[in-house]
Amino acid sequence: MDAPATLSHTTLLDRLAEVAVHIGLGGLKPGQQLVMTAPLEALALTRRITEHAYRAGASLVTTLFSDDAAALLRHQHASDTAFDTAAGWLYDGLAVAYRDGAARLAIVGDDPHLLAGQDEAKVSRANRARSLAYRPALELITTSAINWTIVACATPAWARAMFPALPEEAAVAKLWDAIFAASRVTVDDPIEAWRAHNATLMTRRNMMNAKRYAALRYRGPGTDLRVGLADEHRWMGGLTTAGNGMTGNPNIPTEEVFTTPHCQRTDGVVASTKPLSYQGTLIEGIAVRFEAGAIVDAGARTGQAVLERMIGTDEGARRLGEVALVPAASPIAQSGLLFLNTLFDENAASHIALGQSYSKCFTDGGATGREALIARGANTSLIHVDWMIGSEHVDVDGITQEGNAEPLMRQGAWV
Amino acid sequence: MDAPATLSHTTLLDRLAEVAVHIGLGGLKPGQQLVMTAPLEALALTRRITEHAYRAGASLVTTLFSDDAAALLRHQHASDTAFDTAAGWLYDGLAVAYRDGAARLAIVGDDPHLLAGQDEAKVSRANRARSLAYRPALELITTSAINWTIVACATPAWARAMFPALPEEAAVAKLWDAIFAASRVTVDDPIEAWRAHNATLMTRRNMMNAKRYAALRYRGPGTDLRVGLADEHRWMGGLTTAGNGMTGNPNIPTEEVFTTPHCQRTDGVVASTKPLSYQGTLIEGIAVRFEAGAIVDAGARTGQAVLERMIGTDEGARRLGEVALVPAASPIAQSGLLFLNTLFDENAASHIALGQSYSKCFTDGGATGREALIARGANTSLIHVDWMIGSEHVDVDGITQEGNAEPLMRQGAWV
Repeated sequence: MDAPATLSHTTLLDRLAEVAVHIGLGGLKPGQQLVMTAPLEALALTRRITEHAYRAGASLVTTLFSDDAAALLRHQHASDTAFDTAAGWLYDGLAVAYRDGAARLAIVGDDPHLLAGQDEAKVSRANRARSLAYRPALELITTSAINWTIVACATPAWARAMFPALPEEAAVAKLWDAIFAASRVTVDDPIEAWRAHNATLMTRRNMMNAKRYAALRYRGPGTDLRVGLADEHRWMGGLTTAGNGMTGNPNIPTEEVFTTPHCQRTDGVVASTKPLSYQGTLIEGIAVRFEAGAIVDAGARTGQAVLERMIGTDEGARRLGEVALVPAASPIAQSGLLFLNTLFDENAASHIALGQSYSKCFTDGGATGREALIARGANTSLIHVDWMIGSEHVDVDGITQEGNAEPLMRQGAWV
Repeated sequence: MDAPATLSHTTLLDRLAEVAVHIGLGGLKPGQQLVMTAPLEALALTRRITEHAYRAGASLVTTLFSDDAAALLRHQHASDTAFDTAAGWLYDGLAVAYRDGAARLAIVGDDPHLLAGQDEAKVSRANRARSLAYRPALELITTSAINWTIVACATPAWARAMFPALPEEAAVAKLWDAIFAASRVTVDDPIEAWRAHNATLMTRRNMMNAKRYAALRYRGPGTDLRVGLADEHRWMGGLTTAGNGMTGNPNIPTEEVFTTPHCQRTDGVVASTKPLSYQGTLIEGIAVRFEAGAIVDAGARTGQAVLERMIGTDEGARRLGEVALVPAASPIAQSGLLFLNTLFDENAASHIALGQSYSKCFTDGGATGREALIARGANTSLIHVDWMIGSEHVDVDGITQEGNAEPLMRQGAWV
C-alpha cells in the first residue's frame, strides 16, 4: 500500500503533522494550550503542526526552538564555571504549563555528533544540570499527566551523520523518506493505518498482561540474561490514556510493548545488537554483566569511557528501568538503517533501558506513589538510556511465576 | 568618520552584537544568564550575540525565537474563544529568570503589517491577554531591576513595509544600512562612539534635572500643548544603572532624554508629526485635545478606529506616561526614513507616550513604591505607545516652577 512516489514532500509533511496532532496527541481539548519544542530546521513542520493544532481546538501553540550552533558556542566560549547552570526558570515554567493542562509535542532531529570533540566533563555537567532542572516537568510527562508525543524531522546534521557518503541534499531526502515510512504517513490512509497498528500492539500488551510473567530470559550471541519484572508490572505500548483523559501515541513511530523490570532482579550477561549513540559518541559492542540488578562489569569495543561515565551518573544508572519487546520484522528493523536516534532505533529491536522507570507501567498506573513503586522494584535515576539487545539471533522466553519457560520470540519474531 | 563601504555585512553584524552586549547590556556579570528574544530571521545576529555573551561571562544564553507565520496561523485557524489565552507559564518563567538575575536582550524586527486584515477585536484581546501575563516580568524590566537592552535586525517583512518599491533583497540591504548607521557601528570605533554619545546625553539630562521645570510647552502647526511634569520627576536618557549594578543603554539606538509627565496636568492640543504604526495599522494625522491630563477629543486622518480602541484600553491609556526630547538633527531624523518601529522612530523626533510610566524616572528611582509614585503623577496602563510630536517646525519651552518660559528647543534643535 506504500505509494511514496505519488505524494509530494509538502503532502507528506502535512500528513506527519496531522498524525502528530490527531494520533500522537490524540487531538486537543477545546482551549488546550500546546507546547512544542523543535530544532530550527523543523520550522516547516512546526507550522504544519501549528495549523493542525489550532484547527483541532488549541487556544495557543508556543514553540521553543533550539539552535545547535548556539549550544556549541557555549562549549567553545563559556567559562568553566558555566556548565553547572541550567534554565531552571524555563523548565519550571514548562512544569506549570503541564500542571495547568498544556499538551506537549517534541520534534527531534538531533545532530548525533554535535558535542563530539567537546570536553566530556563539561558535556556531562551540563547534561546533569539540565536533567535536574527538567525533572519536575519531565515527571508530568513520564507519568502521562497530559497528552504528549514525539515526532521526528530530518535535519541536515542528522542526515549527514546517517549517510556520510551522500551529498547533503540527497541524505536529507533519504532520511525524510525513512521518517515518513516509519511514521506510517506514506500509506493510503495514515489515520486508519495507525488505528490498525495500535490494535495489533494492544493485542500483544493484553497477552503479556494476562501472562503476568515473573521474568524474561534472553539467549543469543554473547547474551544469557534473566530480567526479573517488577511486582504489579503492567505492559504498555501503542496508545496511552493520559491523566487528562486524552488517548494518543506518545511516540511516532512506535513498535514496542514495554514494561518495568525489577531493578534488583536482573542477572547474567548481555551484548548489544546495535550501536548506541549517547551524547555524541557511538558506543559499539557493549558487553555487560548484571548481578542482583546492577551492572558489575561493563565493556565496549568503542566508547567505553562514555559508557562508564553514563552508568556512573547515579546509583540508578547501572540498573534497568525499562524492558521492551520489538519484532525483528518491524518496518524500522527492515529498513536496515541505523538512525542514531532512540525514537527510531529502539523500534528496530528488543531493548532494555538503564535508569529511570515509568510509573505508568504498573497495574495502578503509579497511583500509589513513589515509595510503593520503589518497593515493587521501580528504578530512579537522572538518565533513561535505551539500548538494543534483540535481533533475529536472539530468543526470548517468558518465565512464569512457577518458573516455567514459555517461548515468546524466536529468531526475533513473536511466537 | 562613517565608512560602511569598507566593512562587510559579517563585520557590521558582529559589531552590532558587540555593541548590544558591551554597550546595551553594559557587559554581563560572571555567571549571569542571558535571556534573548528574537524573530527567526535574526538567527545570524543571535549567534554573534551568543558568542559575545559567553565571552563576556554568561553562564547560559537562552533564546526564545518567534515565528510571525505561527502567530498568523492562530488568527486564521483558532476558535474565537482562544484569544483571551496567553503563555502565562512562560512570562512567569521570565519573571523568575529576571528576579534570579538574568539579563534581557530583545531583538526586534517586527512586520508592521503582520496582523493587518485580521479581526481587530481578536488582535486586541490577544494583546490584552499577553500584556496582563507579561506584566510581572515587564515590571522588572521597566524598573531596571536587571540590565536589559533592545537592538534591531532587518527582516524581509519589515524591509518590504519600509521600502515597498524595492526588490526584497535590496530593501533588506537598505534597512540593514540604516540600522547599522543608527546603531553607530559603521564608525571607526563603535564602543568609543557610544561613550561619547552617552556623555552628550548625560549633559542634557543633567541640565534638565538641574532646571526642575514644572512643565514643558510645545508650539507648532496644530500644536499648543502644556505638559505638566510629575513631582520629583527625573530626566533619564543614554546610560541606565540597573538594580543589579550594571550600567548600559536599554535602547540601541537612542537619542532621547525623557521623563515622566504628571498624568493629570496636560492641557491643550497636539498634532502628530510622523505616522504611528500600531498593531499593523498606520495611524496618520493624529490631532487630540487634552484636558486635565486626559484625551477628551481624538481624531486621525487614517486609522481613527484603531486610535480610539488604543486609548480605550483602560483609563491610563488616554493619559501620558512619558515625555521625551529628541533634536531634529538626530541621525535617525536626518536619514529621512520612517522605520514603522518605535525603537527608531521615537529617536527621530520629540515625542510623548500614552500609558504606563517608568518608575525609574523619579528622583528616588521609584524606590518609594507604586502608591507614592501615583501620588506624584505617575500613570498606569497596559499600554505604552510612543507618538511623535516634534519637528523642525515645533518649539519647546521649559516652564519654571515660578511660571516663566525658557526656550529649550527652537526649530527642532536644542537651544
